[in-house]
Amino acid sequence: MIYFEDMEPGMEYELGSYNVTEAEILEFAKKYDPQPFHINHQAAQESMFGGLIASGWHTASICMRLYVDAILNKAASLGSPGVDQLRWKRPVRPGDTLTGRFKITECKPFRPGVGIVKGTAELKNQDGKLVMNFLGQGMFGTRPS
Amino acid sequence: MIYFEDMEPGMEYELGSYNVTEAEILEFAKKYDPQPFHINHQAAQESMFGGLIASGWHTASICMRLYVDAILNKAASLGSPGVDQLRWKRPVRPGDTLTGRFKITECKPFRPGVGIVKGTAELKNQDGKLVMNFLGQGMFGTRPS
Repeated sequence: MIYFEDMEPGMEYELGSYNVTEAEILEFAKKYDPQPFHINHQAAQESMFGGLIASGWHTASICMRLYVDAILNKAASLGSPGVDQLRWKRPVRPGDTLTGRFKITECKPFRPGVGIVKGTAELKNQDGKLVMNFLGQGMFGTRPS
Repeated sequence: MIYFEDMEPGMEYELGSYNVTEAEILEFAKKYDPQPFHINHQAAQESMFGGLIASGWHTASICMRLYVDAILNKAASLGSPGVDQLRWKRPVRPGDTLTGRFKITECKPFRPGVGIVKGTAELKNQDGKLVMNFLGQGMFGTRPS
């Protein structure tokens, strides 16, 4: 179990990889982001993106899944107040494989038994190109005494 | 069709409402944010949240759906470079009804034929309490001449 005391600025975590299928892009977008370039082949082809791309919120959710599997579900996670500077840098397309990374930038006590950890999360595609990054923050419990 | 020229700072849009079911909270979280307090009744009950709550990324995705239905799919939308200051203010629980609002704060030309619009998006629950807000930005086409 990872506690607040186990984390410090500069630590980096590999979050593993996620293969993004066309079916999943369509399923997510039909529910949460039904813009033509996310759900309609023809419209996507004619758009500035030249083909179907994943919703940016889908990409962020995929990053979260990798982060949960690699860190949060092995840690004393107590939720998050939010994120900053979320940027969608490049389109995510059907068949892309996204690989995540998280680097801690700041750790500070919040209240007795709880600390806040901030860090940059990023996803790169199979060509090593950055597709998304953001500055995340999470609350973590301290080690039981 | 809404073009860049049709938007200006101070304009406000009601985005409508969305009912969040327990089934949808579980479905989203099992895929993208499988932390115990999002997917396990017992663990959620014993957590600081006192019961199941929606993933913050699910809440953001619901806001996006309202925004797409109310504005983007009626506008010359060209995607978004990202969002800032995303904050999850209160837990979203099964049965909650979330109502969205978007207020334009800034409009500026980006390149010929395209402008950037920034604004604050927010979701309140059925008690009128803020559950999430962020500063969004989107690119929009100008009116064809």
